[in-house]
Amino acid sequence: MQQSHQVWVLGASGYSGAALCRILARHPSVNIAGAFSSAGSSPVEINKLYPELSGQLELMVEPWCDSLITEAASAVDSVFLALPHEASAFLAPLLLQQGCRVYDLSGAFRLDDVNNYPLYYGFEHTHPELLAAANYALPELNQSNAAYDAPLQSLPGCYPTAATLALAPLLQSGLCDSAQMPVVTAVSGVSGAGRKASLTTSFCEVSLQPYAVLTHRHQIELEQNLKCELIFVPQLGNFKRGIVATAVVTLKADADGRVPDKAVVEALYQQAYGHQPAIRLRDQPAKIDDVAHTPFCDLYVQVVGRKVVIIAALDNLLKGAASQAVQVFNLSNGFDSMEALL
Amino acid sequence: MQQSHQVWVLGASGYSGAALCRILARHPSVNIAGAFSSAGSSPVEINKLYPELSGQLELMVEPWCDSLITEAASAVDSVFLALPHEASAFLAPLLLQQGCRVYDLSGAFRLDDVNNYPLYYGFEHTHPELLAAANYALPELNQSNAAYDAPLQSLPGCYPTAATLALAPLLQSGLCDSAQMPVVTAVSGVSGAGRKASLTTSFCEVSLQPYAVLTHRHQIELEQNLKCELIFVPQLGNFKRGIVATAVVTLKADADGRVPDKAVVEALYQQAYGHQPAIRLRDQPAKIDDVAHTPFCDLYVQVVGRKVVIIAALDNLLKGAASQAVQVFNLSNGFDSMEALL
Amino acid sequence: MQQSHQVWVLGASGYSGAALCRILARHPSVNIAGAFSSAGSSPVEINKLYPELSGQLELMVEPWCDSLITEAASAVDSVFLALPHEASAFLAPLLLQQGCRVYDLSGAFRLDDVNNYPLYYGFEHTHPELLAAANYALPELNQSNAAYDAPLQSLPGCYPTAATLALAPLLQSGLCDSAQMPVVTAVSGVSGAGRKASLTTSFCEVSLQPYAVLTHRHQIELEQNLKCELIFVPQLGNFKRGIVATAVVTLKADADGRVPDKAVVEALYQQAYGHQPAIRLRDQPAKIDDVAHTPFCDLYVQVVGRKVVIIAALDNLLKGAASQAVQVFNLSNGFDSMEALL
Amino acid sequence: MQQSHQVWVLGASGYSGAALCRILARHPSVNIAGAFSSAGSSPVEINKLYPELSGQLELMVEPWCDSLITEAASAVDSVFLALPHEASAFLAPLLLQQGCRVYDLSGAFRLDDVNNYPLYYGFEHTHPELLAAANYALPELNQSNAAYDAPLQSLPGCYPTAATLALAPLLQSGLCDSAQMPVVTAVSGVSGAGRKASLTTSFCEVSLQPYAVLTHRHQIELEQNLKCELIFVPQLGNFKRGIVATAVVTLKADADGRVPDKAVVEALYQQAYGHQPAIRLRDQPAKIDDVAHTPFCDLYVQVVGRKVVIIAALDNLLKGAASQAVQVFNLSNGFDSMEALL
Repeated sequence: MQQSHQVWVLGASGYSGAALCRILARHPSVNIAGAFSSAGSSPVEINKLYPELSGQLELMVEPWCDSLITEAASAVDSVFLALPHEASAFLAPLLLQQGCRVYDLSGAFRLDDVNNYPLYYGFEHTHPELLAAANYALPELNQSNAAYDAPLQSLPGCYPTAATLALAPLLQSGLCDSAQMPVVTAVSGVSGAGRKASLTTSFCEVSLQPYAVLTHRHQIELEQNLKCELIFVPQLGNFKRGIVATAVVTLKADADGRVPDKAVVEALYQQAYGHQPAIRLRDQPAKIDDVAHTPFCDLYVQVVGRKVVIIAALDNLLKGAASQAVQVFNLSNGFDSMEALL
Repeated sequence: MQQSHQVWVLGASGYSGAALCRILARHPSVNIAGAFSSAGSSPVEINKLYPELSGQLELMVEPWCDSLITEAASAVDSVFLALPHEASAFLAPLLLQQGCRVYDLSGAFRLDDVNNYPLYYGFEHTHPELLAAANYALPELNQSNAAYDAPLQSLPGCYPTAATLALAPLLQSGLCDSAQMPVVTAVSGVSGAGRKASLTTSFCEVSLQPYAVLTHRHQIELEQNLKCELIFVPQLGNFKRGIVATAVVTLKADADGRVPDKAVVEALYQQAYGHQPAIRLRDQPAKIDDVAHTPFCDLYVQVVGRKVVIIAALDNLLKGAASQAVQVFNLSNGFDSMEALL
Repeated sequence: MQQSHQVWVLGASGYSGAALCRILARHPSVNIAGAFSSAGSSPVEINKLYPELSGQLELMVEPWCDSLITEAASAVDSVFLALPHEASAFLAPLLLQQGCRVYDLSGAFRLDDVNNYPLYYGFEHTHPELLAAANYALPELNQSNAAYDAPLQSLPGCYPTAATLALAPLLQSGLCDSAQMPVVTAVSGVSGAGRKASLTTSFCEVSLQPYAVLTHRHQIELEQNLKCELIFVPQLGNFKRGIVATAVVTLKADADGRVPDKAVVEALYQQAYGHQPAIRLRDQPAKIDDVAHTPFCDLYVQVVGRKVVIIAALDNLLKGAASQAVQVFNLSNGFDSMEALL
Repeated sequence: MQQSHQVWVLGASGYSGAALCRILARHPSVNIAGAFSSAGSSPVEINKLYPELSGQLELMVEPWCDSLITEAASAVDSVFLALPHEASAFLAPLLLQQGCRVYDLSGAFRLDDVNNYPLYYGFEHTHPELLAAANYALPELNQSNAAYDAPLQSLPGCYPTAATLALAPLLQSGLCDSAQMPVVTAVSGVSGAGRKASLTTSFCEVSLQPYAVLTHRHQIELEQNLKCELIFVPQLGNFKRGIVATAVVTLKADADGRVPDKAVVEALYQQAYGHQPAIRLRDQPAKIDDVAHTPFCDLYVQVVGRKVVIIAALDNLLKGAASQAVQVFNLSNGFDSMEALL
């Protein structure tokens, strides 16, 4: 019988937080010692918030109170933060001081350059040392075991998970034409905007629409991941969950004008991801329904001449958030990386 | 009182054909002398096929029969073809011989190079002379009055209308970096696939999905329009009508490394389209619902540094098919170009 | 050349109000002298709120101010109120004092019994005399010309328009079994909840769901219209606009146990509605898309033995609100009842 | 270690069949010995048909061949039939002869009266003796252990599962007014129509629409279950899976004109279903998303005066088909009834 890891989930009433609770509750080696929502909220059964969980998950979501931090050291091993960025930036350091390992699903520790926080997240970051210390936890790309020992695990954004997985093998290969700036367009389900009332995400207002063109904060996260400038166009889609990202590059011709053929490019992806349990290499582009409610990122590669298109699809609440966080938790703790995910 | 133009609509039972009938029926100078569907079908009131038209449009859709062609000369001035490509390729020459002006909504006369027909449309084209004679009827770009006198008006595809309008002003301006191959990704509503039963377009199977990546026949149409290679990724969206296309280019730096700013780029679009009644220049990206059921193409331009993104949105059945055909008909016949469209 | 009627639209920024503006703007005998939204809002072009209207409607929506009432007498002939119920209850009397005719789309004057206002609408009604004076303006049932001369025209709710039209001919015929309480279940598009941010109507939360079962305020409106108790179950559907209502009664057997056959029932509906331009009698049940964006109520009658089902479908923002208001306006002013609606 | 039950799934390429395979594959005591689709099809990996299953389920779907029947006796213990009705009517007797237990998800053995088959299913039933022998396998209502020993288990239809569970406790209680014919209206997701191309279920054609009003074959199944005439109106909804059924009855007054209150009615449902693991008694009406992808039927009861409304919701492919079949299989074989379902 395995010993249980005690965990807290903060932000348990949101879409990602609830998805986390659902996964963690079926993890054989985890006990959810506390699930919390905003200070000032009323305690509530999670299945009152998410009736689909009735009969499957019983869990009280309690109001958070900062004084609980002092209990963290004795109460829990790990804390999952599914919080607004600024709330994570405030709480993570305090929890780390208590000796907890922190899995942060927000953007609070994703960026290397502290100056980008006021620009892209609207707040001054007061712990630049944690930006360096945090592990950017994209398991398929950052495969060093040691990385997952770091006390602060910063989970990638949903768009960057899809687009980075799509582009990294090719951009790292040296096969791409550097004169062609990579282009990523992506369509995300509305749950990416979180669980709150807003006119923009009200049912009657939603239909497919690009937004934050060339100004989205995930563009710099992507550029940081891929070490090059690129062009990113996010779009809000009229579906609840899922992302389909389309990534475009071109291949470099050699001195004789020849470019690598499709088999060469496919081999790159096979080598990078063929053994990765959370990635499915596909011979057709995935659709949203293929990945919704799954922990997978589906990848499809097309090459015609020097043109290359990679399609990545995932569930923004799972591989783009909750299931990836548990995948990382599993790596930190020596479990099978897909434990509780299938 | 204006004299009525007598018109036929072939393919009147399909989505584009029915949209055409609806528009033409409210055109003050047009009389629909015949509306036809496939040979062998039964005569049917159009509002049995499209009950939303009841109380608004009464029109018998009759089975087509090739022997009707000989009546064309005396019966009608103009014929609209909303037919499968190969059927258009067969019928258009016969109708032209009868002296009719033909507005063809298919791809049968869009491509300059006859060799592309077997490759992209699956049939040998037997009238290459008509490829040269046909006017590629994109009114906002081809503004020569004489062009609309041509007996054969070939309407652009739905994706090419959106993407060509998006890219033409910039690509023609000489401001773009030619080392960056333009990229177009687009999402189309399911009506683009036509009105027929297929598993691919059945309700349970549709969710956002890229398809025909780098192999879609509209890619060569686009390359022909824009006179350059480009990368085109079409996607099927989970909505009924509308297209949102995202077009990406980069700007060329001058000898001092400076690139034109946003105002310069916006001025190009203002100059090209500011006076065009079917184009709406927008300061936010359009969403599908902004253009569905309208004859407009909405355009939005974003420039950050040398990165440029243009978003084009239109209704694939209207500006991408039926309303554009009537716009062209209006130009051919000296009417206001938006007559019957608003 | 007809003289223009000067009108104001209050609540012009909401879904029904904007639909009203769009219709009134194309009415050949109407001039929109003012379009208003809440006090304290900023003036805004209506096509900034509803970009689909760009190129079709230019109209400033101004913030309302109660002091404008004194201008009403000189400025306008008619005022359309697309306001919250209590706001209508407050403003309608003041506007009537100014000599305007008022078309009220709220529930403020629909109920006969003043005591039902605190119970079902949450406020004390201070003008019970107007409940008696108001004309309940359902044109197909209340066909007295004089009724439309009344200064206060109270438009029916969206569900009651559908369900009353469905049931009235049969319930008035004396053919129904009075031991069977009529049952109405209906599914409405989300726009019925108005244009405001709320978690209930946010995109991720909406899927088909019954609500307010046996407690909805439209149940008493329906019982008042049909002069009998009935059972009403409203449901929120996952679509933007439209209502499909299913109404059920049974037929009374005569002394010999015989019940009227289908032809008898159909003749009732033919007689009641055959000549009504806003009603389409159908031989198949309508679907939402048949009526969305149209001013029609579609009706279908099925009879098997003594069981009778009537399906009514309409666009909640048009025949359930804006187009019906204009239909009534047309009747008040001697225009064709469908003027500006098709 | 439990011994494995060997099972076949026929119709494994359809929506219900694939859902069955997915559940059975995770059942710890089951081995899928064969999964079959139509004769003449090509062998195919199930995750080529349903890419969402990749990485989760590997299973070849083989073409069926009637000669396989003779292998059934030695190969398998149980056979699940997710087939067209007539195919089930033909194959079930042959499989029973081989000594297999048969779980039939079609309508082939649901009706007591053999004469209803030509009328409602369009074929002559040649095994009337099996109509009597089959167990109508609705576990929450038919709770006799012996019933699940029967070799032929006939699974209820999706609508009847919902509506029968909704109405049975009240109709059996004697509290209802028998002068009021019960009314059931229900909305089903499009997957209820099966996985095949048809214009009716093509994406562009689907919007909420009643169909088969008073003539649907599930009406007689419901009347058989509930032992009374009733009125049934099915509707096609614009969603993929799920059913919400609204059932209406009235309460009988006693000699003093008093009717039972809400608590009495709720107690009936608590008593009938409080201990049933596949039923969730709810204090709010369920929405489709609450039950989609779950094995539950959610029930909500509302009582006002003598009016009673019961809302039942379930996933048509699970509690309305596949998960209910496995629930029954579990009962037949002495497993926990929810084994493999959560």
